[in-house]
Order: sequence, then C-alpha cells, then structure tokens
Amino acid sequence: MMEFRCALMEIETKLNVLNSEFALTHNRNPIQTIKTRLKQPVSILEKLHRKELEVNIFNVEEYLADIAGVRVICSFPEDIYTVADLLLHQDDIRMLEIKDYIKKPKESGYRSLHLIVEVPIFLSEGKKPRKVEIQFRTIAMDFWASLEHQLRYKKHLENAEEISRELRDCADKITSLDYRMQELRGKIEYAD
Amino acid sequence: MMEFRCALMEIETKLNVLNSEFALTHNRNPIQTIKTRLKQPVSILEKLHRKELEVNIFNVEEYLADIAGVRVICSFPEDIYTVADLLLHQDDIRMLEIKDYIKKPKESGYRSLHLIVEVPIFLSEGKKPRKVEIQFRTIAMDFWASLEHQLRYKKHLENAEEISRELRDCADKITSLDYRMQELRGKIEYAD
Amino acid sequence: MMEFRCALMEIETKLNVLNSEFALTHNRNPIQTIKTRLKQPVSILEKLHRKELEVNIFNVEEYLADIAGVRVICSFPEDIYTVADLLLHQDDIRMLEIKDYIKKPKESGYRSLHLIVEVPIFLSEGKKPRKVEIQFRTIAMDFWASLEHQLRYKKHLENAEEISRELRDCADKITSLDYRMQELRGKIEYAD
Amino acid sequence: MMEFRCALMEIETKLNVLNSEFALTHNRNPIQTIKTRLKQPVSILEKLHRKELEVNIFNVEEYLADIAGVRVICSFPEDIYTVADLLLHQDDIRMLEIKDYIKKPKESGYRSLHLIVEVPIFLSEGKKPRKVEIQFRTIAMDFWASLEHQLRYKKHLENAEEISRELRDCADKITSLDYRMQELRGKIEYAD
Repeated sequence: MMEFRCALMEIETKLNVLNSEFALTHNRNPIQTIKTRLKQPVSILEKLHRKELEVNIFNVEEYLADIAGVRVICSFPEDIYTVADLLLHQDDIRMLEIKDYIKKPKESGYRSLHLIVEVPIFLSEGKKPRKVEIQFRTIAMDFWASLEHQLRYKKHLENAEEISRELRDCADKITSLDYRMQELRGKIEYAD
Repeated sequence: MMEFRCALMEIETKLNVLNSEFALTHNRNPIQTIKTRLKQPVSILEKLHRKELEVNIFNVEEYLADIAGVRVICSFPEDIYTVADLLLHQDDIRMLEIKDYIKKPKESGYRSLHLIVEVPIFLSEGKKPRKVEIQFRTIAMDFWASLEHQLRYKKHLENAEEISRELRDCADKITSLDYRMQELRGKIEYAD
Repeated sequence: MMEFRCALMEIETKLNVLNSEFALTHNRNPIQTIKTRLKQPVSILEKLHRKELEVNIFNVEEYLADIAGVRVICSFPEDIYTVADLLLHQDDIRMLEIKDYIKKPKESGYRSLHLIVEVPIFLSEGKKPRKVEIQFRTIAMDFWASLEHQLRYKKHLENAEEISRELRDCADKITSLDYRMQELRGKIEYAD
Repeated sequence: MMEFRCALMEIETKLNVLNSEFALTHNRNPIQTIKTRLKQPVSILEKLHRKELEVNIFNVEEYLADIAGVRVICSFPEDIYTVADLLLHQDDIRMLEIKDYIKKPKESGYRSLHLIVEVPIFLSEGKKPRKVEIQFRTIAMDFWASLEHQLRYKKHLENAEEISRELRDCADKITSLDYRMQELRGKIEYAD
C-alpha cells in the first residue's frame, strides 16, 4: 500500500506543477482541487473475490487498476483535456487506458474522464512503476456525481426510476451550463 | 491585523465544530470548504480614502467591516441557512448586519448570504470583540461569482451588455438547478 | 468522540491565537508545534476495564481525562509557563488538574507540564464543557520522551537497567542545555 | 520563480516517498519535518549585486544556487546520511556540490549537511533541470542554528565574543548528546 500512496504523491506533484505553470501563463488555475484516495484493504479483498482471483500481490498489481485513485476537479470542460494532455505527454508517464465518459456519458448521466496511467516511484532500490486511476471532472460534474453516488447505496427506493430520470435530466442541464459558462469565460478573457 | 487573523481562526473553528456535529447527526457535511482572507493593507488604505476617512486604527475598526473575510461554500441552499442560524445562535457571537442576496439577488445575478458578526478573541489581556464578514454560498453560486468577478476587472469590453445578460441568465439557471438537486437529495435521503 | 475532537479544535485555536499575539509582541514564536490526538476506542475500553469501570458514556466523561490530548512543543522552558499561564487565565477555561513534571521530574527522567482543563464547545444545542489533557514540553524534552517511549514497549531487554540509567543521565544533560540556551537567548535578545 | 517552486515540490515529494518507505521497513520516520523556502526577489537582487553580476535570468540560474531551499530535519545524525544517500542515488538527481558541516563544523559551531542538486521539473514543454539547496540537520542542530541565526542579526552586542564562545560550547554538547541518544536508540531497537 505504501507504494501506491507514493504513486499518489508523484501524480499529485505533477498536477500541482502543471497547475502552477498554467496559472503563470494563463493567469488562472485550471485545477480547482485534487483529492486522493487509497482503496481500503477490505475493498481490495472483495474485488479480488468478485473477479475470482487468488489473494496475492501479483493479482493486486496486475488486475486491480484502481487501488490508487486521484480525482482532479477542474473549472471548465476544456481544462480537463488540457491538463490530461499535458500529463500524458510527460516522458515518464505511460497511459494504459482511457475512458471518456464526457464525450460518451454513462446511461445514468455520469460524466468524467478516466485515465489509468503508470508512474515511476523512486524507492531506495530504484524506480518502480505503479498504476494510478485519475478521474477528471468539472466542479458541476463532481457535485452531480456525489449526489448520484448516494442514490446507488439506497436499496429500497420506491420512486427509483423517477429519481434516475430526474438525475439524468439534471446531468444534461449541468453539462449545457458548463459549456455556456466556458463560452462566457472565453468572451470575457479574450475580449481585451 | 494579527487580531483579525485570530478572529478568522475563531470563526473557522466554530464552523468546523458545527460541520463535525452535523456530519455525525446527518451523515453528510453541509460545508464543502471554508476560505479565509485578510484585506491587504493597501486595499485598506484605498477604502479609507474612498470613504474620506483619516487613516487610523479607530476608523479601521469602526468603519471597515470586511478586513477579515470568511467564505463558506455549502452543498445546498438550505445548508446555508442551517449553518448561518446555528452560528448566530451561539452566545458569544453578535450579529451586526445581514444581507441576503439569495432571497434578493443583486442586479447582476449575484447570490450569497452576507453576515457581519462580532466574535471575541482571547488575547493575553483578556477578551476583545472583532468584526468578521462571512459570505455563505453554494458551490454553484461560488463558481458563478468567480466568473462574474473576472468580468468586473475588464474595462474595455465591447459586448459587455450581452455578456452581463448572459451571466444573469446563467445565474437563474444555476439557482433553479441548485434547488432541483436539493429536492432530489431530499427524495434520496428520506426515501428509506 | 466528535465532541472531544471539537474540544481539541477549540484548544488548538486558543493556542494559535496566543502564539500569533506573542509573535507580534516578542518577535518570535513560543510554540514550535501543536500535535493533537484522540484516544482510540480500543484503548478507552482497555482503560475502563483496568479501572474496573462499566463501559458507558458517563464513566468515559467522568473518569477518563485523557481522551482528547494536545501536545504543545515550545522552544524554551520559560515559554511553557508563559503559554500555560495565558491559557489558564482565559475566562472560559477551567483548570481541573496540574502535574508539573518539569519541576518534579519522574523517576525515569521524564519532564513535561501536564494540565487537565475543561473547555466549552459550541454545539447546535448550546455550550458543553469537555475535558482535554495538555502536555507542554520543550523540543529537547519531546525528543527525549519519544525515545523513552520506545523503551517502555520493549519487554525483554537484557540491559534495561543500564539503558534506563543512561536515559536518566541524558535527560539531566538535556535539561541543563535547555536552560543554558534559554539564558543565551536572553543575552542575545535583550542586549540591544 | 514558479519553476523553483516546482523544483521544491519535486524534492519534497522524493523525500516524503523515502520517508514513507523507511517508516515501513524500519518502523520509524527518519525525517521529522521538511521546510521549504524561496529566496525573496529583493534578496536575489542584493545577492547579484554583491557578486557584481548583472540582473538577468541567466545569472540567476547560473550563479545563485540557493533560490530554492529545502531544510530536512532528521531525528538522529545517521538518518541524515541515510536519507541524503538515498536521494543522491536516484537517477534523475544530479549532485552539484556537497558541504559537510557536520564532519567539519563551521568556526561558529554550526553543523549541517548542505547539498546542491539539480532535479528535473516536468513543464508543459518538457523536462527542465532546476537547482535546489538541501540542508540536512538533526532536531538539536536545527534548534541551535535558529538561536545562532538571531545572534548574527544583532549588531551592537557588548559581550558578543563571550556569547559566541558559549554558543560554540553548547554546539559541542548538543552534538555529543545527539550521538549518545543515537547510540541508546540502537541499543533499544536491536535489543530484542
């Protein structure tokens, strides 16, 4: 687990560096907040079990890609692609997987850009690559996702379908507002 | 300035205590983030000048209420009133002023609940009351306000009126989404 | 436990306020670091058991005074008494107990000033007093204590007595250095 | 300056990773605290002036090695060499200079291990090496240095020579205590 915690620190530093540079050249921060989380040992066991895999280090490192997770909350949709791009172009980052739930939202209305990358961590015996899952979202997408997340943990919801439909509709409205605000920012920023 | 910095610490602690208690009884945090800021000496001088007041400690303490500022970002509109209410009921807090720009938004579309309160700080010679301005907003109101803030610093904007109109329209849409999300949360939370 | 966590926040804020004020008037920070800790539920159970008390909230609140603990690391011995004094003079702090292991070190050589105080926390239903244990030490006393702490968890130490003797001797040397450095600081500070 | 701030973040992450790994394998943290500082623009100008260099970016990058500074406070003297060694063995770190004021203390009694290294920062246009000065000290050396630092800013000290002599003597006593405590830790740690 220590190695995954270190991988989170490396990714967080890379994102903070990019954010600082961007702030200097563009006079605003594309990243609002960075949250990191490590999967709990009990959830790791559950997931291995669900995948019918034996419990050992090899299977954890090979088949579970989301032990170390970073959530990057950006101001505007375009910031997501700018930051993700800059990160993926760094020569010590290897991209393993990309799932763009912004271009292709989930059935529920969920929007987010998911990357799985490998980043080297510098241990006493040398460099070692470690997997990290990175989720990029706007502030509004994140707010929506935290509400939708609550829904999934409620089991006996009478009007579940109606709520799902409403959530999906809110997700669409939120998205269109995100893009309108982005357009407005463009007009304000480049006007003079 | 030290005394105002201390007043910020006292208010921040009070808000963190309320947030912790609420998290325990309601299983969620009403407060997302707390940001504090101290007015820069140069801005204090400017403001005294604008108000045609002499530069002295008395005038600063008497006529400037926003030297110490706290911004409280809540998840939902109702959280704003819950937290503000709990704070104002504490027996060492004295409310000096309240401006509810949520119930009565500014012309621009700006929404926020502004309080000016007095809080005692415990210095070596005893208690001393100090003024703090507290702004309560939802995440969405805060996002909108940060964009609108940029606009005010642009001087020569050709299409300023169109942008203002669009911003006002976005503010309305954001508000209605805030309340829809709040209603949805109610349905999810109390369903079972 | 939430209430004790809140009591820690209140005490920490009070100490930070005193530190800020002192920094302004004396141009240096008497407090180097503040560490807080909450007793783990399992340790609370163990302690109730050891004291042959039933497990209930009343006994926890009445008989355990060290659930919420604050460690205040000061630069010099005199800072300890200055800060402790200022804290105890605040009108909402009630002192319940004081043990001065600096004036009367433990057999082991352990030095620290221990206070048990009651501080009000502002919950939604009003103020409620909560107990907090505060330990004041110099940097050097703290360093010594962390080494001595390791010793107590070693069971089968062949040369335990010799090590204890050496530790005691180091504690004396550390103390005399603390006071020499304090005297030197006095000479430097008040010289011109 | 942004680039130097980023270099500080990279070094801090590397140190935190090494500390985490060490904590896991040895069950204790060799690093107590890490402090970073950026030289103020006004101090940079002063230093260029003192060195009779023109004020331009090239001279700053070429001749000033201490714009970005990291101070690493370790528990024991041997931790200093362990951590410094692990850092210098990383394949993206280039050592430019080493000054061991622990083995060869300054005339004043000052002890510290100073490294100047180059670390790559990952900017949007690619990697770029940046210089960072790292000072390693024990807690006790750091405490001593902060007192001695005050002395150097006092100009008209009557008994300056006497104070210097006393400080030098304290430095020697502190060093011998550091090594005694280290030896004791060895006995406690490896005893059973």
